Amino acid sequence: MSITDLKGVYSAAVSAGIKAKGLDLAYIFVPHCYAAAGVFTRNRVRAACVEITEQRMRSGTMRGVIINSGNANAVTGARGRQDALRTARIAARLLGVPEDQIGVASTGIIGKKLPFEKIESGLRLLLGDSLARNGVDTGRAILTTDTCAKSVDLQAKIGASRVALSGIAKGSGMIAPNMGTTLSFLVTDARVPRRRLQQLLRDAVDSTFNLASVDTDTSTNDMLLLFSTGEVAIGESPGAIAKFSKLLRAGCDRLARQIIRDGEGATRLIEAVVSGARSEVDARLIAKSIIDSPLVKCAVHGADPNWGRILAAAGKVQGVALDPRKLQLKLQGVCLVRRGMPTDFTRAKLHQLLMTDTVRVELDLGLGRGSATAIGCDLGRGYIDINVAYS
Amino acid sequence: MSITDLKGVYSAAVSAGIKAKGLDLAYIFVPHCYAAAGVFTRNRVRAACVEITEQRMRSGTMRGVIINSGNANAVTGARGRQDALRTARIAARLLGVPEDQIGVASTGIIGKKLPFEKIESGLRLLLGDSLARNGVDTGRAILTTDTCAKSVDLQAKIGASRVALSGIAKGSGMIAPNMGTTLSFLVTDARVPRRRLQQLLRDAVDSTFNLASVDTDTSTNDMLLLFSTGEVAIGESPGAIAKFSKLLRAGCDRLARQIIRDGEGATRLIEAVVSGARSEVDARLIAKSIIDSPLVKCAVHGADPNWGRILAAAGKVQGVALDPRKLQLKLQGVCLVRRGMPTDFTRAKLHQLLMTDTVRVELDLGLGRGSATAIGCDLGRGYIDINVAYS
Repeated sequence: MSITDLKGVYSAAVSAGIKAKGLDLAYIFVPHCYAAAGVFTRNRVRAACVEITEQRMRSGTMRGVIINSGNANAVTGARGRQDALRTARIAARLLGVPEDQIGVASTGIIGKKLPFEKIESGLRLLLGDSLARNGVDTGRAILTTDTCAKSVDLQAKIGASRVALSGIAKGSGMIAPNMGTTLSFLVTDARVPRRRLQQLLRDAVDSTFNLASVDTDTSTNDMLLLFSTGEVAIGESPGAIAKFSKLLRAGCDRLARQIIRDGEGATRLIEAVVSGARSEVDARLIAKSIIDSPLVKCAVHGADPNWGRILAAAGKVQGVALDPRKLQLKLQGVCLVRRGMPTDFTRAKLHQLLMTDTVRVELDLGLGRGSATAIGCDLGRGYIDINVAYS
Repeated sequence: MSITDLKGVYSAAVSAGIKAKGLDLAYIFVPHCYAAAGVFTRNRVRAACVEITEQRMRSGTMRGVIINSGNANAVTGARGRQDALRTARIAARLLGVPEDQIGVASTGIIGKKLPFEKIESGLRLLLGDSLARNGVDTGRAILTTDTCAKSVDLQAKIGASRVALSGIAKGSGMIAPNMGTTLSFLVTDARVPRRRLQQLLRDAVDSTFNLASVDTDTSTNDMLLLFSTGEVAIGESPGAIAKFSKLLRAGCDRLARQIIRDGEGATRLIEAVVSGARSEVDARLIAKSIIDSPLVKCAVHGADPNWGRILAAAGKVQGVALDPRKLQLKLQGVCLVRRGMPTDFTRAKLHQLLMTDTVRVELDLGLGRGSATAIGCDLGRGYIDINVAYS
């Protein structure tokens, strides 16, 4: 399955020579796009492609995007902006659509000039067939330090209609999306008007990508775009919208989990479920603090039931309601702390339970009804080996 | 040199068997203490010893502290509180002072009961001589994953007087002090009244320990105490207070730097100097974000001049004023970014400059007069190896 299994969605990729090897330049084209939505990085240092694509997304319906990997085209000044604009212009001409209906996304190293000649000749090669259906290649072309492609294909019945949602994503390091995400592209055939689509997308990202982190580092190039072909009418009843919203959230959740699972050097996914908080905001902050703690991450890597680090990570968050005497902590379903006091548990058994690919931390603050789930990954030598000599 | 070189300060340590080996129980006693001050962890999950010592510090002048390593006595409930109180009670009796004039500090693993029988017999051994002058041993007894003892000995001329400041500290992991610090104990002979001493200490810690981080994890047991024997009168003129304040800040700065340099697995100290911020708060947040970024830390470990990660770490901070076009970035004195644009620099030369024990990052935001310096350390395999199996 791939994004091009959706009627009206075209995509393919080529090797333009931006990366040392492999696919690195791709397009997604939805000629009869009904609505499009997008969320973008909140890093204050943003790549030109993010600025341009966000602006175009706001001012009208976009029909497609050109994506390159191997170079982020970030902190490249006026020249970088020009390169991004030229990329969109050439692509739009080859696709036969107005220039401002094409977005640009880049990922890779920061601060290096885009090899524009390679992009230009690559585009001519790539868009020779503008109606290709090779979304699988596109899923591969957007990767950088990733070790595998990430994709999702879901269907849902909404009223009498069957709608589809399909998407791809990349990301492994510099992953702590904030109000945006890593590079990710979704398509759906559900007919949802633009404003509504944007709002639903933002909500879905907020409870999935924005609660996921590999290394607390937010990228300069994060971008998630959603295109709707509008082929399938679902109406605008609250029930239909809720169902579509659920589908969208599920799609974002699956992609975010794939990214975390492929976090640089990661061997286990950590799921921190915080409940009983005074508010959802409190729960989010504490859940994030737990999955971001290097000490928690190292303990999980070593399958070490060092739960003191989990409570320390929860307690270090400032400005939230927390009463140590009310805390209840479970690890892999085993209750380790009840009313702030350690229980008797078998260390050896817990060590065994932690030797798995998903570690579940459940912290109940016992104060209210706020809850949130954040996902992160363990921290081992692999992360270090990948990142000590990247540039 | 050690804290017991100061007239009127007594200290020693013994092996009580709390740790597998080595010194692990110590006292500091200032029988004629003139004033004492302290700052304590802001982690919401705090050890009983922190609660008790802070309360005693607030309500009157403390004369001494009992310190154990190897067990944090944190998240140990009512039993933990009782153990901390009993420790102080027994020590106070042996030292011949009221119970509420003795504090307790603990460091080590979280969530395990204190082996109280060992503490009790250790205290009798330790306080057989309550006027020992072996501060060097105390500096060693408070260590846990540290690879070396940390101490400072400074003198300053204030008016016609010569005052001394001497201190010890511990810390290597779970180091991101917030309004408190790791375990640290300072003594001075400068006669400064209690309230003033407390305020000066808080200011000094705020610009040193609180801007230092090994791993973003704030401990449940952080505590810094300062005892004054009051032997040397310095008066209360603004000039004298400013000089003492400078001395105190220098002492805290040196101890904080020793802790960061001994950060778990650390090989280099990173000094992030942020200037030109709209406010000091902005500068602090950005400086902290830079030294806390795992990607920046890994790059420094590999002596990789991957400056894009530094700007990404600065940009990810929300709610501060930052204009990417005004940024100027220097690494080891070499200008890499000017007005938001990369300069031409020799990668190989920079790599050489980074192969050293102190890496200086200077980021000028070009917006105002706010500045701050944060200190952190690199992230390499050493950190992982220490932390995957600690408990």
